[in-house]
Amino acid sequence: MSNKLTLGLLQLPVGGDVAENVRQAVLGITRLKAANPQLQLAILPESFNGPYGVEHFGQHAERVPDGPTCQELSRLAQQLGIYIIGGSIIERDAGDKLYNTCTVWSPSGQLIGRHRKIHLFSVDIEPAQGGGVQFDEGAALTAGSELTVVQIGPHKVGIGICHDKRFEELARIYRNMGCSMLVYPSAFCICQGPMHWELLQRARATDNQLFVVTCSPARNNMSGYVAYGHSMIVDPWARVQREAGEGRELIVEQIDFNMVDEVRRQIPIYKQRRTDVYELAKANTSD
Amino acid sequence: MSNKLTLGLLQLPVGGDVAENVRQAVLGITRLKAANPQLQLAILPESFNGPYGVEHFGQHAERVPDGPTCQELSRLAQQLGIYIIGGSIIERDAGDKLYNTCTVWSPSGQLIGRHRKIHLFSVDIEPAQGGGVQFDEGAALTAGSELTVVQIGPHKVGIGICHDKRFEELARIYRNMGCSMLVYPSAFCICQGPMHWELLQRARATDNQLFVVTCSPARNNMSGYVAYGHSMIVDPWARVQREAGEGRELIVEQIDFNMVDEVRRQIPIYKQRRTDVYELAKANTSD
Repeated sequence: MSNKLTLGLLQLPVGGDVAENVRQAVLGITRLKAANPQLQLAILPESFNGPYGVEHFGQHAERVPDGPTCQELSRLAQQLGIYIIGGSIIERDAGDKLYNTCTVWSPSGQLIGRHRKIHLFSVDIEPAQGGGVQFDEGAALTAGSELTVVQIGPHKVGIGICHDKRFEELARIYRNMGCSMLVYPSAFCICQGPMHWELLQRARATDNQLFVVTCSPARNNMSGYVAYGHSMIVDPWARVQREAGEGRELIVEQIDFNMVDEVRRQIPIYKQRRTDVYELAKANTSD
Repeated sequence: MSNKLTLGLLQLPVGGDVAENVRQAVLGITRLKAANPQLQLAILPESFNGPYGVEHFGQHAERVPDGPTCQELSRLAQQLGIYIIGGSIIERDAGDKLYNTCTVWSPSGQLIGRHRKIHLFSVDIEPAQGGGVQFDEGAALTAGSELTVVQIGPHKVGIGICHDKRFEELARIYRNMGCSMLVYPSAFCICQGPMHWELLQRARATDNQLFVVTCSPARNNMSGYVAYGHSMIVDPWARVQREAGEGRELIVEQIDFNMVDEVRRQIPIYKQRRTDVYELAKANTSD
């Protein structure tokens, strides 16, 4: 793998039928690879296989990696010979707890990362702010406590899920661990979207001088929770390299990791950090 | 002092004559207060009393707080009964070291904060990026090693100078210390300006849910180092509340700290931080 990477973002609609959602994701990735043989990594949205909502999570929860969704992703990654960052699904663990979990698959179909959302989404935004939204993932889900860095070819990639990207400490630790890309499958709400969606990704990109990638479900104004859309690739200079609209959209884009070295050399903030004055301790890692 | 604060930003041109620069700053603040009796805090630009450049720093360096610039700011704060965040000047300390230093003055003329720039500006940006710029403050200056939080009425305010705002760790510690506003006197270059000026301020605002204020010198295309201008007030929702243009401009704006409580209540990320997973240690504080 050269210093370039061709990735696909699948901004898919998510309906109530889990098997159909998975079928559409598999079909989407398969067609994207057929039309773009250079595709090396496919990225799915948060909660891509079932409706995003506290009342729904228990109904479509599955085991990781033995459940049917994981098995499909594993098979597909191996069949196509690509990496898959499997957005997220609701994971039911042996103790019957539920997690919002991103699985990452290698081109040989191996599970190389399992990220349980560390920061559960809980807000109570008033109607004056973009229509407002109330949500509390904590009513149904348990938070993960481990950082997740996966190796995509020669590149270290840090994984977060949606609300995780609000916490700059997590991104900082990933960058300190050597990441050159962060991927956040996300179902950001349409209330926070216009205010903070692009801002948060550009903020993480400029502070850590790496690529930041999000993948959202397509917007569906008829669903109980309306995702923002606007799946996005931000480059290490914090420029928006590519952005989806609101509806169903499959994006293929090549990114160039030489750009990471370029900005880090020209604006050398990493080595200018005053770790004698402040220090961000890494408490937990997954690998 | 209520939960509102009226502040003035003095985006002034900076010429080669130190006494004249100080005279213009004093005149500007005096007139701003006369025209706006509600003014409570005046903020000056980075290096407001002398040219910004490695070759100039030694020529206009002064003692803090005994030098003539500090004495003028102290007298003026007391005379007008306002707080002054004195941008920055080049400080020569007893050991003959030079620092890029922000002094903060109370309405009784007392020095209540002295911030020595912690992150010296050193970049080597190639012409392909907005014209490029090379600069190395470290060739002439020594970096400070202490955080600076001042009390402006009931509000804790964290101080940084220009390049300091690239380092999100500093802002995070200030927020953890209870700050509801960050002030960065800045002479950002015109190369980084379009890419990162607004972004950095909005990033600090959204992560830490507080006001972020910058004050730049007016742009002077004839000077050796051209400052970006665009002095700015960003609110805790990360919206640009007020922005100057490029030239000489004096802004008066009232900000409402109730907005800090509002966003922190509605998007409660501070208490959602996973300090069990990561921890930003505070190594050093000044007060």
